[in-house]
Amino acid sequence: MSTIDDLSINTLRFLAADAVEQANSGHPGLPMGAAAMAYVLWQNHLRHDPSDPKWLDRDRFVLSAGHGSMLLYGLLHLTGYDLPIDQLRNFRQFGSLTPGHPEAHITAGVEATTGPLGQGFGNAVGMAIAERFLAARFNRPGHTLIDHYTYAICSDGDLMEGVASEAASLAGHLGLGKLIALYDDNEISIDGSTDLAFTEDVEARFEAYGWHVEHVEDGNDLDAVDAAIREAQAEADVPSLIAVRTHIGFGSPKQDTADAHGSPLGEAALIASKERLGWPLAPRFLIPVEVARHMGAAKTRGAGLSHTWREKLEAYRAEEPELAAELERLMRHELPGGWDSALPVFEASAKPMATRAASGKAINALAGALPTLIGGSADLAPSNNTTITGAPAHSRDEHGGRNFHFGVREHAMGATLNGMALHGGIIPYGGTFLIFSDYMRPSMRLAALTGLHVIYVLTHDSIGLGEDGPTHQPVEHLMSLRAIPHLTVIRPADANETVEAWRIAIGRGGATATGGKGPVVLALSRQNLPILDTNAAPMRDGVARGAYVLREAGSGATGAAAASPEPAGDAHAAPGLVFLATGSEVELCLRAGARLEAEHGLRVRVVSMPCWELFAEQPQDYRRAVLPPDVPKVAVEAGVTLGWERWVGADGLILGLDRFGASAPGKEALERLGFNEDNVVEFGLRAVRDVAPEPTLG
Amino acid sequence: MSTIDDLSINTLRFLAADAVEQANSGHPGLPMGAAAMAYVLWQNHLRHDPSDPKWLDRDRFVLSAGHGSMLLYGLLHLTGYDLPIDQLRNFRQFGSLTPGHPEAHITAGVEATTGPLGQGFGNAVGMAIAERFLAARFNRPGHTLIDHYTYAICSDGDLMEGVASEAASLAGHLGLGKLIALYDDNEISIDGSTDLAFTEDVEARFEAYGWHVEHVEDGNDLDAVDAAIREAQAEADVPSLIAVRTHIGFGSPKQDTADAHGSPLGEAALIASKERLGWPLAPRFLIPVEVARHMGAAKTRGAGLSHTWREKLEAYRAEEPELAAELERLMRHELPGGWDSALPVFEASAKPMATRAASGKAINALAGALPTLIGGSADLAPSNNTTITGAPAHSRDEHGGRNFHFGVREHAMGATLNGMALHGGIIPYGGTFLIFSDYMRPSMRLAALTGLHVIYVLTHDSIGLGEDGPTHQPVEHLMSLRAIPHLTVIRPADANETVEAWRIAIGRGGATATGGKGPVVLALSRQNLPILDTNAAPMRDGVARGAYVLREAGSGATGAAAASPEPAGDAHAAPGLVFLATGSEVELCLRAGARLEAEHGLRVRVVSMPCWELFAEQPQDYRRAVLPPDVPKVAVEAGVTLGWERWVGADGLILGLDRFGASAPGKEALERLGFNEDNVVEFGLRAVRDVAPEPTLG
Repeated sequence: MSTIDDLSINTLRFLAADAVEQANSGHPGLPMGAAAMAYVLWQNHLRHDPSDPKWLDRDRFVLSAGHGSMLLYGLLHLTGYDLPIDQLRNFRQFGSLTPGHPEAHITAGVEATTGPLGQGFGNAVGMAIAERFLAARFNRPGHTLIDHYTYAICSDGDLMEGVASEAASLAGHLGLGKLIALYDDNEISIDGSTDLAFTEDVEARFEAYGWHVEHVEDGNDLDAVDAAIREAQAEADVPSLIAVRTHIGFGSPKQDTADAHGSPLGEAALIASKERLGWPLAPRFLIPVEVARHMGAAKTRGAGLSHTWREKLEAYRAEEPELAAELERLMRHELPGGWDSALPVFEASAKPMATRAASGKAINALAGALPTLIGGSADLAPSNNTTITGAPAHSRDEHGGRNFHFGVREHAMGATLNGMALHGGIIPYGGTFLIFSDYMRPSMRLAALTGLHVIYVLTHDSIGLGEDGPTHQPVEHLMSLRAIPHLTVIRPADANETVEAWRIAIGRGGATATGGKGPVVLALSRQNLPILDTNAAPMRDGVARGAYVLREAGSGATGAAAASPEPAGDAHAAPGLVFLATGSEVELCLRAGARLEAEHGLRVRVVSMPCWELFAEQPQDYRRAVLPPDVPKVAVEAGVTLGWERWVGADGLILGLDRFGASAPGKEALERLGFNEDNVVEFGLRAVRDVAPEPTLG
Repeated sequence: MSTIDDLSINTLRFLAADAVEQANSGHPGLPMGAAAMAYVLWQNHLRHDPSDPKWLDRDRFVLSAGHGSMLLYGLLHLTGYDLPIDQLRNFRQFGSLTPGHPEAHITAGVEATTGPLGQGFGNAVGMAIAERFLAARFNRPGHTLIDHYTYAICSDGDLMEGVASEAASLAGHLGLGKLIALYDDNEISIDGSTDLAFTEDVEARFEAYGWHVEHVEDGNDLDAVDAAIREAQAEADVPSLIAVRTHIGFGSPKQDTADAHGSPLGEAALIASKERLGWPLAPRFLIPVEVARHMGAAKTRGAGLSHTWREKLEAYRAEEPELAAELERLMRHELPGGWDSALPVFEASAKPMATRAASGKAINALAGALPTLIGGSADLAPSNNTTITGAPAHSRDEHGGRNFHFGVREHAMGATLNGMALHGGIIPYGGTFLIFSDYMRPSMRLAALTGLHVIYVLTHDSIGLGEDGPTHQPVEHLMSLRAIPHLTVIRPADANETVEAWRIAIGRGGATATGGKGPVVLALSRQNLPILDTNAAPMRDGVARGAYVLREAGSGATGAAAASPEPAGDAHAAPGLVFLATGSEVELCLRAGARLEAEHGLRVRVVSMPCWELFAEQPQDYRRAVLPPDVPKVAVEAGVTLGWERWVGADGLILGLDRFGASAPGKEALERLGFNEDNVVEFGLRAVRDVAPEPTLG
């Protein structure tokens, strides 16, 4: 080990240990153990431009073991990213750019938000997919615009998580040759030795997945790490795992113990560590001048790399102006003009259609204008209607394939979609049954936290799916997804609302891959629903506003013929009762409303409320106009009642489902569990009758 | 294949195909393909008593691929379980005993609720753990009371799911020699050939996990299946996977296609199938007399097995009366007298204590009286305080170990806990951070659906956990867990409430393994909380009722000294404002309440509300007494506001957190995001001030 290598690696180790000590919180063990391999990777291999962290063709680096965040912050600082040393001194403090675990929307150069284990590994798989897809789309003979690696450092914990197992199986299946994962095999987890819980043969497992596996016995052997990375790079057709035997908390008295994992070393052990590795005890946060220069050279190198790439882009533009324009548009995260012009409009006279079917039509109407709208399903493509007709499946041999068979791997799908979005250039979507959103919920949460533009196509959205029964019938899922901050949940009532939902979903991309308006859930029916009787314009505005008056009171309509985009202002139209509903229950409310008008002389408004989050963003005037404060209200949704008090008020009634479903034909399941016209009418009558309600409904 | 074998297997095949056809819904493919292996297993190996489905020492059989439910229903019917043919004719109909996917609480002989893939596999791991633990506890030389296998049939989809990967790694690690999984390797999933997404070497993967692997090339070769099962049984020290190459929809024109998977064959294909396999076209649901006799012999055989076992139990009782009494108590799902007598009481003068620490003390206080209370953590034992002091870790060599190192495998932990509970004789608990409940949510839902007695110890329950930041700070989790039907979520406010929460959690077991009061979540603080100033009795009743008056208005108390178990009835005590809060926010409300009384002359009641579900079960009188309808209310909880309108009413205010958290020291994170005394006081003043509230808060 040359002096400068040694110095650089120890700088990384002690920046981490000092920062954790200063914060009195954090994880020194991983940075100290994995500093050498990270250094080799960053110094010898990683092609990036610290001055241009979003350069499209940079190599991606994901620290899947996010608890080792200080290792990443140290690397970013030393290689010249916009992360001043004061930020490292403020590690884990409120408002700093150095949160406890890396957050991609907070810190330039952080490629993925990690910490929940296994996620970063799955993100890396998604990034490698995105790279390969974009390479297939844009590269031309003599013009290799997209050509970069995705590297990840992952831990025992990452590889114990099922999401990583799924993602590894998928990556091996797809033969993602430019994915290289370094496994920080330190044989220690929080409970103690990994012998306590993790004695499988990881390397053999990855070979079984179809990965190339390298083994480095000494994680501080820079040449061995370097050689392994070169071997991995040479494997063009399969992903590579490099298992590197490291020592957690290397150099400290707590080395090779769980004590080094998640707590500061403590003053005494920190001093002892520095003494053992020949490091000055003071000052803290020491960066030798030669290390600053040596590792800081990444900035010059990186500027050269990105400059060369921009020259390649110029040459490309000369020969492939349209593709170049498309690529540059993607880099700006912009949609092409007229991207939504092919979206269909369904006539009310058309046959009833499941919203999942309408969603499939919307996807196909968008696919032409949005060539990097890609996605698929967790082995439910025929049910989720997620297939782009005529496009090939993405596979080991078909890198430009837009249809993804994720397998029965919802969680890997979620993490992979995040990686595709994080990579940039792609609008990814993924489908499964709504109930199985539970299987990928941790990934969905990270998409929301990071503001990723990911679209979830979640079909079979209620007990209306029928015979599969309560194991497959979502009940609490709509509400528990609404509970996730920055996640937009849209449950359209018919085919046209579904088209609008897609328009909104596509439009929610941000100006960068992270920090945008966040992911969108489309909750879609298995069963056919009538096309509502409205014209497209008010519905379009209405869906965009989250809720709107679909049927005005006194209209006499059984459909929505008399609805106006804004509620009518004249007293004549003032409703005596408001139904508010989502998805398949909207049509039920229309029928019940018409009956209440005809048979009971009530003036009934029906509000379609496909999206809580969008409605909540509206000005108070609009919200009050749609849901007048003093009018009795009944909410109808085939899911848990929890939360609906927000919109119906304490005096309102909620027709929901606070139990699990039942195996029966869908229509019967709905009717038996209360979602029938008689019961909705009864709720309406009760809402109007009840004057002295109970404040608590539980 | 002998005639009777042939007839029996075809009976299973066509019972399934006929039932799916009749229901016009379901999955004929798996039963037709896997009937032979299931038949061999049930006919030659499975030790069970159809007349006594809950016989403790029966072999367990889990159909992890729950969509093949008709195979299981066929087996149950033919071997003499209480499942009449009319139930098979009513497959997937409302109220039948034959729901679309098997539900353990519905159908006698169904050992696990399956359908969501991978779960049953994990349940089987838990059952094998339970068997081994109980064997270690109860078996004595010459007295082998507990000695049975756990068998599972699983599909491609099961083995693609991360939860199964995690569980397989755990099972291999633990060396569960009596776990035998038959893999129905039919090479077809919903999207088509498994080549589309699943090309890994499954057998090599399981070998990497430390499993014994058998391969059967022809799933209809009964001798080969039988031999493989015998080989697997002979492997006493490691679990076994038997990969059986089968043909989905065997015998039908749709054989080996995805069309055979999830839809009725259709009249023509059904007829063609029967013709091809030499089966009478009529009547449907045909059971040849000789098959009924042949397979029905399981009933006599089973009665003999369980009879012999009861004789063994008698002999055991004579020599080990105490252990026998304990075993019989477990079989009755009863708790021993005085089981809770060692639970601690903490004095208000004691030092502040994190509720996770109090939970650790409660576990240890219960461990003596409840020798089959066993559990552990997903690699967070030191943080979750889940370790039973002095008890060994459960391991390959220590079968009586009560402490489980589940590894960083939350999902497998969830599925395994379910299996332990389904097995019976065990009260299982598992710990992780509250945020990582997302990783095991599908298992938690199935525990709730099935009514399993599982206890989740979920610590680090708010942004108060601090520096780890938003990736680790739960925000929406309390509410999204409350949204799951039949799941009881308790968030205690201090050490004593935590003890009561444990008392409740232990007491919620049912009379059988399934269909009880369901699982319990304990949401516990990382940070220390003061011991509230109350005596144990009213708090005990109060926690059991879900919410109670901790501080009465006008008491002048900063603690809860003046609280009474029931709210005071005299007008003098009528509050002008009610704070309701859970967990760590209760103490904050006490301080704010005292300040509002002292500085603003308000009469402030503070309600501690550790459990919504228990409070909702109370009589209206009690609920109104605790939360008087016409008094302004403020709810305070460091989580999303969604849902709190239920308790504060439309005029109430909610101090919550509708955003992700922030990396900062816990106290600072709480204070910065609004959970400080000043802000609570401000909310209190606003609640009293506001008279014309907006009906919608969003």
